[in-house]
Amino acid sequence: MFRIAPSILSADFARLGEEVRNVTAAGADWIHFDVMDNHYVPNLTVGPLVCEAIRPHVTAPIDVHLMVKPVDRIVGDFARAGANIITFHPEASEHVDRTLGLIREAGCQAGLVFNPATPLHWMDHVLDKLDVVLLMSVNPGFGGQKFIPETLNKLRATRARLDAYEAASGRRILLEIDGGVKVDNIAEIAAAGADTFVAGSAVFGAARSEDPNRYDSVIAALRAELAGVEAR
Amino acid sequence: MFRIAPSILSADFARLGEEVRNVTAAGADWIHFDVMDNHYVPNLTVGPLVCEAIRPHVTAPIDVHLMVKPVDRIVGDFARAGANIITFHPEASEHVDRTLGLIREAGCQAGLVFNPATPLHWMDHVLDKLDVVLLMSVNPGFGGQKFIPETLNKLRATRARLDAYEAASGRRILLEIDGGVKVDNIAEIAAAGADTFVAGSAVFGAARSEDPNRYDSVIAALRAELAGVEAR
Amino acid sequence: MFRIAPSILSADFARLGEEVRNVTAAGADWIHFDVMDNHYVPNLTVGPLVCEAIRPHVTAPIDVHLMVKPVDRIVGDFARAGANIITFHPEASEHVDRTLGLIREAGCQAGLVFNPATPLHWMDHVLDKLDVVLLMSVNPGFGGQKFIPETLNKLRATRARLDAYEAASGRRILLEIDGGVKVDNIAEIAAAGADTFVAGSAVFGAARSEDPNRYDSVIAALRAELAGVEAR
Amino acid sequence: MFRIAPSILSADFARLGEEVRNVTAAGADWIHFDVMDNHYVPNLTVGPLVCEAIRPHVTAPIDVHLMVKPVDRIVGDFARAGANIITFHPEASEHVDRTLGLIREAGCQAGLVFNPATPLHWMDHVLDKLDVVLLMSVNPGFGGQKFIPETLNKLRATRARLDAYEAASGRRILLEIDGGVKVDNIAEIAAAGADTFVAGSAVFGAARSEDPNRYDSVIAALRAELAGVEAR
Amino acid sequence: MFRIAPSILSADFARLGEEVRNVTAAGADWIHFDVMDNHYVPNLTVGPLVCEAIRPHVTAPIDVHLMVKPVDRIVGDFARAGANIITFHPEASEHVDRTLGLIREAGCQAGLVFNPATPLHWMDHVLDKLDVVLLMSVNPGFGGQKFIPETLNKLRATRARLDAYEAASGRRILLEIDGGVKVDNIAEIAAAGADTFVAGSAVFGAARSEDPNRYDSVIAALRAELAGVEAR
Amino acid sequence: MFRIAPSILSADFARLGEEVRNVTAAGADWIHFDVMDNHYVPNLTVGPLVCEAIRPHVTAPIDVHLMVKPVDRIVGDFARAGANIITFHPEASEHVDRTLGLIREAGCQAGLVFNPATPLHWMDHVLDKLDVVLLMSVNPGFGGQKFIPETLNKLRATRARLDAYEAASGRRILLEIDGGVKVDNIAEIAAAGADTFVAGSAVFGAARSEDPNRYDSVIAALRAELAGVEAR
Repeated sequence: MFRIAPSILSADFARLGEEVRNVTAAGADWIHFDVMDNHYVPNLTVGPLVCEAIRPHVTAPIDVHLMVKPVDRIVGDFARAGANIITFHPEASEHVDRTLGLIREAGCQAGLVFNPATPLHWMDHVLDKLDVVLLMSVNPGFGGQKFIPETLNKLRATRARLDAYEAASGRRILLEIDGGVKVDNIAEIAAAGADTFVAGSAVFGAARSEDPNRYDSVIAALRAELAGVEAR
Repeated sequence: MFRIAPSILSADFARLGEEVRNVTAAGADWIHFDVMDNHYVPNLTVGPLVCEAIRPHVTAPIDVHLMVKPVDRIVGDFARAGANIITFHPEASEHVDRTLGLIREAGCQAGLVFNPATPLHWMDHVLDKLDVVLLMSVNPGFGGQKFIPETLNKLRATRARLDAYEAASGRRILLEIDGGVKVDNIAEIAAAGADTFVAGSAVFGAARSEDPNRYDSVIAALRAELAGVEAR
Repeated sequence: MFRIAPSILSADFARLGEEVRNVTAAGADWIHFDVMDNHYVPNLTVGPLVCEAIRPHVTAPIDVHLMVKPVDRIVGDFARAGANIITFHPEASEHVDRTLGLIREAGCQAGLVFNPATPLHWMDHVLDKLDVVLLMSVNPGFGGQKFIPETLNKLRATRARLDAYEAASGRRILLEIDGGVKVDNIAEIAAAGADTFVAGSAVFGAARSEDPNRYDSVIAALRAELAGVEAR
Repeated sequence: MFRIAPSILSADFARLGEEVRNVTAAGADWIHFDVMDNHYVPNLTVGPLVCEAIRPHVTAPIDVHLMVKPVDRIVGDFARAGANIITFHPEASEHVDRTLGLIREAGCQAGLVFNPATPLHWMDHVLDKLDVVLLMSVNPGFGGQKFIPETLNKLRATRARLDAYEAASGRRILLEIDGGVKVDNIAEIAAAGADTFVAGSAVFGAARSEDPNRYDSVIAALRAELAGVEAR
Repeated sequence: MFRIAPSILSADFARLGEEVRNVTAAGADWIHFDVMDNHYVPNLTVGPLVCEAIRPHVTAPIDVHLMVKPVDRIVGDFARAGANIITFHPEASEHVDRTLGLIREAGCQAGLVFNPATPLHWMDHVLDKLDVVLLMSVNPGFGGQKFIPETLNKLRATRARLDAYEAASGRRILLEIDGGVKVDNIAEIAAAGADTFVAGSAVFGAARSEDPNRYDSVIAALRAELAGVEAR
Repeated sequence: MFRIAPSILSADFARLGEEVRNVTAAGADWIHFDVMDNHYVPNLTVGPLVCEAIRPHVTAPIDVHLMVKPVDRIVGDFARAGANIITFHPEASEHVDRTLGLIREAGCQAGLVFNPATPLHWMDHVLDKLDVVLLMSVNPGFGGQKFIPETLNKLRATRARLDAYEAASGRRILLEIDGGVKVDNIAEIAAAGADTFVAGSAVFGAARSEDPNRYDSVIAALRAELAGVEAR
């Protein structure tokens, strides 16, 4: 099964409730919520109050990607604001294992995010505490970037590790990808091992300021590409 | 002339465009836009993308209060996003005079914000670069606080300094107040010298999730209180 | 009335319970507890666990001087550990008024500490939230310093401000001094306006590793000097 | 040979000299000294002055675990205060090789501490400068945690690396474990490769406020469990 | 007596020894050495090794202006490299009094630098430890700025304070100005109270890449303007 | 082909243009330019203005080694100042892939620097963006250190990875070494895999203050040692 998670970064922030309703009505599986603090990345986006405001508009999981440093203090704020999944960068927390524990104790699923250059070794000793691994295929916090091709190799390596873990433990960890995912490359990305796809400008961006019904056709186009890939 | 500047912090972030349209239609003079970065204050709110999204919905000035540290890098982002006024805390910038210059060079009006305990001396040598002085009457970044009574003395002291400056220079600097302003204390605050009033929960909070027409009555109530105070 | 507050920095940390019992038995009014975090000052001393350990040994107020930055998170730890008074440096908190509020809400008395060069203006707008003003007469965090003579002028200026506040409000704020206080200068310091005296090496240092009964004579000598000064 | 290193965190800080005398008399091999700075971990414990104070009370090695960031400046303070072993977290020093060098030049043994999630690769190029590897089996700086089971795998992996190094170099590096070690799991932990055991609440905690003679029975119980494991 | 202190920032760094020889031969009184660390200001210039390299080329005092944060660690480096005067920004040191002490103990003269917006109160309690007060008439670390007119008022206020201190103590503190000083405004600046003038592009900039003899005429032109002002 | 890159750290900063002309005339291939910011390392050296000043004096590549944190803002300054190669430490940038991209977009070659203890995994996912890998064989920022022997193993491991990458991609990445390279060990270092050698005191240090013609003989001696090693 594949999951499509449109990122709110490309939505219309003046009517965000309507946007997330429309996109989930059009078939989006998750809402991807990008949090930037102007410190870990040079941009500042939206925080817990905005998450809380859209929560009543969707039943789909809200997938909060924390591009903040440090991480721990804000975890509880997002859990209370209705987040279902919270992911963070291992370089942004002094105590990665503890932050994963905080997220789960707050009732959310937890994940680590790997920047394009970040080695995979940060997952060596915490696989049992991960629900999601998110690989960045662009550098977070900067607009207008293309999918970094080397990410395909990194996806394959990650896929192998997660499959081995699943074989041993019986527990599945999702493998999410974020950055430059489009209709013309989603099949290749899925073939390399991803099962969950953050679609930034591909969804909201394509349809924004236009007929919201167009979200259907965009998401359908993404799913059509995925149809030819064996489901993970 | 008095100005009322409802703070978006109490608005419904799921339909922010509609909210700011309604509140300016109801007579709000400015939109007060609270930016928190989870570093200068322990909260993260909204950034330039949200400012840009609401910009087409109002012609009223957008008054951006930066509760961020450091300040300089994000000034240009907000200017491009349509901010008209940008204020910041002097403790949050290594080079206060330069930050004021950056804001004005970006085409915005500039101001300093004084935390409740911050001495007024930070304005000693930059009066000619200030368009607004904003006094905090609560501690920024924390909810549910009451108007700090000592602020009335601080307002009177500031009023005296700004009046003296106006007498000497012929140029007027606005004196804005933020925190715990309500119908039952706005007259006293105006009498102490404020001319611009951030109304947090007093406006959006009172009417939120209800008939947007109620914004008229809330703002009318604030203005009625001000009617008895001599306009500055 | 004058208060003598021996600093634990010069006590024997291997038998701290016995030390604080002996020194209060010898007439010390407060126990001065110096907390350094190796960031605000280049030294690391003792934290809440040590405060909690000595709490059952004395009924005298424990006067916690936080030489830490930031301040807010650790306030609750010390309140729970039995602190009665908590003071901090205004430069070490982004939100001085709020930190004072946190301390009082935690059930302690609150104070600001002024480094030798720190201007007195940090007290301008928070006098109603201060129970103590602590002037440093040496630089905190470094050993072996002498009383800085300029502090006498600063004491006189502070005394005048606190007396004016008391005349207006009817509420008394204590004026504490820390650094290089000895038998040979305590009278002069008291005459300049201090009413509470941190005695570092003057008390524990003088008697350490010797007969604990000597604490009596050291404290008696300090009190004898104060006898000639009009009580504040 | 196995080493038991009771952590002072669970001792009575009001009579620490007596506590460390008693526990070494009862058979403890090392005194484990936990240093927290309220920055690298959200807690502040004890610094060099306390180390210096207990030094005359024991001849056993004092094993200083620095949970501080940065590390370098405080190394000399602890060496002068009588530390025998100093360990630190690689993420807390910009220059790990140099910090190891500083510790050895100061006459102490040096070690790296690995947080539960920290990859083992930080030892790749510095094995020749390590005397101890300390694996955290809980997150440092937070109380009341249980032994993290994944640590057993990490111990086995570390054991293999250290054994290979010893085979090649003839030099032995100790493998220490810290967090949740109890009578009921120490044998399993030893079997996984640890040779040195920090016992937190297991020792001081068990006997605190009671008959100090009980330290003998607690340490005897730990040793009895180890008797069945082949000595490393 | 007035002092002219050309700033090396406008000199040719490829032949700095020759440059400082030429400019002192042409009558410069001090060499002004601008140190930026890319943290306190967004630029990185030169450090102790460069100071040490030019030291043998001049006997004139080297006046080191530290635009770095923190300050303390680098003071000794510059003293050993031959600095005669070391000034720093009070906002850049946690312990201003101590930093002044460190500079003097290292055998140098000490001073505070005031950014354009920085209140003068930072000198309130340390006048007895100051040899120089340096007022910035541009924002440090950024090129191409003009003299900020408000600085003339600040100079007059500072002059009054330093004259009062000299009258009381018999000790003179120099009043230095840095930023946008040119032939056409130096007389006005001197009349407002400055006695020491950092000349940036006015000296090296005017003559760079040309006949070094031109330094004579530039400095002569500055001195000619000063001739009409009563010497301080 | 081997490259020799004398470090300016040992040159005479009072006549740096002449120094770099002489050393390139004597056969140096690159000029190695050490940038320290007093934050990432406890030293401050030289910045973009000095790079710009020496640029007209040589046609050889200027190889800028950034020992600064953070990295991104200063990249453009050095590109504009004429740098040809810019290397940085992966621990000093939050977004390593992006920093590599910034350097290349600015028209320079890009590289990562590995501290002695830094694991090689930071190159796992960015080989296609590297032009140079620089291994530190001493700790950067501290003088008077010897070549760390373990670096030979690290060189061999790196050599194997870069050769494998070259075999697969057809693209060569240079392998540079910095720290303690001398006539008596350069052959061994080259045999372990290095192709580019930073020569600190070995070149400028040997000849400084003496006949600049001696640079020829020093560089000739280094090349003579390399003659016996198979060129990479």
